[in-house]
Amino acid sequence: MGSTFGHLFRVTTFGESHGGGVGVVIDGCPPLVEISAAEIQRELDRRRPGQSKITTPRKEADACEILSGVFEGRTTGTPIAILVRNKDTRSQDYTEMIQAYRPSHADATYDAKYGIRNWQGGGRASARETIGRVAAGAIAKKILQQAAGVEIIGYVKRIQHLEAVVDPHTVTLEQVESNIVRCPDQEAAVKMIDLIEQIRLNQDSIGGVVELVARNVPKGLGEPVFDKLEADLAKGIMSLPATKGFEIGSGFAGT
Amino acid sequence: MGSTFGHLFRVTTFGESHGGGVGVVIDGCPPLVEISAAEIQRELDRRRPGQSKITTPRKEADACEILSGVFEGRTTGTPIAILVRNKDTRSQDYTEMIQAYRPSHADATYDAKYGIRNWQGGGRASARETIGRVAAGAIAKKILQQAAGVEIIGYVKRIQHLEAVVDPHTVTLEQVESNIVRCPDQEAAVKMIDLIEQIRLNQDSIGGVVELVARNVPKGLGEPVFDKLEADLAKGIMSLPATKGFEIGSGFAGT
Amino acid sequence: MGSTFGHLFRVTTFGESHGGGVGVVIDGCPPLVEISAAEIQRELDRRRPGQSKITTPRKEADACEILSGVFEGRTTGTPIAILVRNKDTRSQDYTEMIQAYRPSHADATYDAKYGIRNWQGGGRASARETIGRVAAGAIAKKILQQAAGVEIIGYVKRIQHLEAVVDPHTVTLEQVESNIVRCPDQEAAVKMIDLIEQIRLNQDSIGGVVELVARNVPKGLGEPVFDKLEADLAKGIMSLPATKGFEIGSGFAGT
Amino acid sequence: MGSTFGHLFRVTTFGESHGGGVGVVIDGCPPLVEISAAEIQRELDRRRPGQSKITTPRKEADACEILSGVFEGRTTGTPIAILVRNKDTRSQDYTEMIQAYRPSHADATYDAKYGIRNWQGGGRASARETIGRVAAGAIAKKILQQAAGVEIIGYVKRIQHLEAVVDPHTVTLEQVESNIVRCPDQEAAVKMIDLIEQIRLNQDSIGGVVELVARNVPKGLGEPVFDKLEADLAKGIMSLPATKGFEIGSGFAGT
Repeated sequence: MGSTFGHLFRVTTFGESHGGGVGVVIDGCPPLVEISAAEIQRELDRRRPGQSKITTPRKEADACEILSGVFEGRTTGTPIAILVRNKDTRSQDYTEMIQAYRPSHADATYDAKYGIRNWQGGGRASARETIGRVAAGAIAKKILQQAAGVEIIGYVKRIQHLEAVVDPHTVTLEQVESNIVRCPDQEAAVKMIDLIEQIRLNQDSIGGVVELVARNVPKGLGEPVFDKLEADLAKGIMSLPATKGFEIGSGFAGT
Repeated sequence: MGSTFGHLFRVTTFGESHGGGVGVVIDGCPPLVEISAAEIQRELDRRRPGQSKITTPRKEADACEILSGVFEGRTTGTPIAILVRNKDTRSQDYTEMIQAYRPSHADATYDAKYGIRNWQGGGRASARETIGRVAAGAIAKKILQQAAGVEIIGYVKRIQHLEAVVDPHTVTLEQVESNIVRCPDQEAAVKMIDLIEQIRLNQDSIGGVVELVARNVPKGLGEPVFDKLEADLAKGIMSLPATKGFEIGSGFAGT
Repeated sequence: MGSTFGHLFRVTTFGESHGGGVGVVIDGCPPLVEISAAEIQRELDRRRPGQSKITTPRKEADACEILSGVFEGRTTGTPIAILVRNKDTRSQDYTEMIQAYRPSHADATYDAKYGIRNWQGGGRASARETIGRVAAGAIAKKILQQAAGVEIIGYVKRIQHLEAVVDPHTVTLEQVESNIVRCPDQEAAVKMIDLIEQIRLNQDSIGGVVELVARNVPKGLGEPVFDKLEADLAKGIMSLPATKGFEIGSGFAGT
Repeated sequence: MGSTFGHLFRVTTFGESHGGGVGVVIDGCPPLVEISAAEIQRELDRRRPGQSKITTPRKEADACEILSGVFEGRTTGTPIAILVRNKDTRSQDYTEMIQAYRPSHADATYDAKYGIRNWQGGGRASARETIGRVAAGAIAKKILQQAAGVEIIGYVKRIQHLEAVVDPHTVTLEQVESNIVRCPDQEAAVKMIDLIEQIRLNQDSIGGVVELVARNVPKGLGEPVFDKLEADLAKGIMSLPATKGFEIGSGFAGT
């Protein structure tokens, strides 16, 4: 349990950092949605670490394959399975982990809960698990756009004390993609990159705040009372590794 | 859909502000848990508005009845149904709502989504829906306490700019219950009550931040990857009417 | 778990033969369906034992109350809770059951599984649990009829060796209701009633076969591959106490 | 929806007769269960058509690959994904199906429901979908055997009028596997094979009855009231393509 999200558009991810691969099965996708492996790949490429000098340097090609559910470029209403092979699995790099848990990773918790873990890497708790989510999200985005013209844009809003100034009504994907830290405020972006570089030199890492804006959202999405839209969004976001907070609308400032 | 929360301990609430009553069905409660209507009532009484001059003045007795699932003071493993009758339904007070939506309530959204609403009051979006949650929570708390000695305490941490100083390791229920705003920092509590009174005089209301602490939590609760404990907590909290933010651990300060 | 059936039209029953009552919560019912307690009562009255000399003589009034989800005669899209109070609970009749399990009842199994049972009667395994199903079925029938003109009729097809001759295309509810065994073949019905009387005199009971016909069923109901219509029907029927077989279409004769 | 079965041991199948492959994701499998691709393959080989002259002649190698959830020969508690590649997809054989629906197949129903279908073959309704079920079943069998010594054996009980005489208490897998029709009554098996050959010569096919026996089943499996063991078994069996009936225990003979 725990690897499935959603009811009607039901996303089940699988896979660990090491082993055959990671992926997703999406059940309940409407038929006749135009989707291609190339579109999904575009989102996966954005997720992929090692794109710039400021992110995790591990190289991953992450080429996706649609195994089922799409025929002649359109969804058929049957489950869409997408697979990304694991590569570059230098498990010898990890042999010391047979003995020792990595600090601040889920290794110890997995051992306590299951009595076994794949010591070759992050296992199921690896950020590679999000590959399945990104692939599912690429399709969900397509549906929302085709059905109601919904636009969704995410960007880095804050790194430590550096806060970007962004107008959520007008921000564009091009602005977000124009720098390696994905912050549409170019001035703030330069400072953020500098800060990250400094912290990397001290062999440390640093957190931040991501902001997402959805435009043209139809009225009445979500279901009362437990499956409200904000509740499901919070669950999705808080289930990502290492997230610690979620705000919607006026957020904590509303008090 | 949307009225059920959880998988193994599955909570389904029902009821609106007006009509026969509100309540809950809990499926999957383990057998042999000692529970009485009086214990559930104690938590319901804490939820009930109209306990003091600073909260909503509407009077509600909210006496609960256990319809099933408990025999001779212990749960039987079968569904526990709990009913609280609606009383004091002066629907004539609401007749003007046939014509007009109340501002900042869910009235308009319900009409847009369902094409019908119970105009006699808040309907399903009423805070009375949380009666079912509180009753289920009373039982959940009992299970956690019996099984692992878990202690859960919640209190008001902030009202507007007034922030309480509370040590989550030592705070007690007695401290929380010692004033009408339920803030264990007595000095802050006095200021908070004053502030609320002032704002009430201006015919306005005000938000705040509630903090919850759980002690003796066993390792390994929750399920990777979507049903992590923090994800389910976030969903539960964010599904409450008018909540706008959720933090866990270091929260936003962690950046 | 186990007390919920269905995904979009989600039926959760609760209650035991003894205690406050039995009932159902239906989540996901579409709004604007016309339904009244009287219509539900009509179906409950058909279920009720003690209507004739050939069925279980226990008297039950089984008056239902709609607690929520219906406003001014129409569903609102919110959960519909229906309650039927338990009456006539002469628990002294059952005191010998504290010591002994009744043969061929679920008493022993419940004790083995849960370590506790309500010894006052059938408990959760009582046929009274089906009151919630019948109430939910009354609403489901109404939806199917309003949406697509679907007609559903059930009748006794066989008692032991006595098989009725019924044309499923033309059989009417009036024919079914015209005798106390609810068999639309009047000749067979007379023989069936005689047979049941004889067996009752020998202090025994007897099984039979019920046939259901649905007319005007729209194409494409059900979901491939596990939630096929025939699979969900089979599950529903086989979850009734004491059912032992299910056939659809040509059934076993198809071999 | 519809491609997932079960709650705690949750099986999600994917894939069509044509395209990248078919498979399954199993979420909720306990950790530390010993399982290998070879064991799963053994069950898949039994399912595979084309093993003898009496079954569908299409050749399929159906080699399975465990993509995740198993480490050093044991399950890890994380989702187990298993993939079987589609081979031998001579889609030119099917081109006439662009225009015409095959009689008694699900082609027309899929088109009515989804407005699109993979005309290259049976698509999602193909019996190849059951590959995922067989793989999941291989693991489920292993768990039941390790946990409680449960033994499950299935065999052909009847072909048209030819009924085998089998003692469910003593029948062995070796007896079942000793002939190509998988009927442990050797005399009946010879007649069955003859009958099938004759019917094949007339370019027709024929149905039958399969019987399953489970030994050493622990008390209390299944959940009241909708998820009774017999209800879930019925659902599983009736969701297989072309099944028309289900009996348990005394079945229809019990009347």
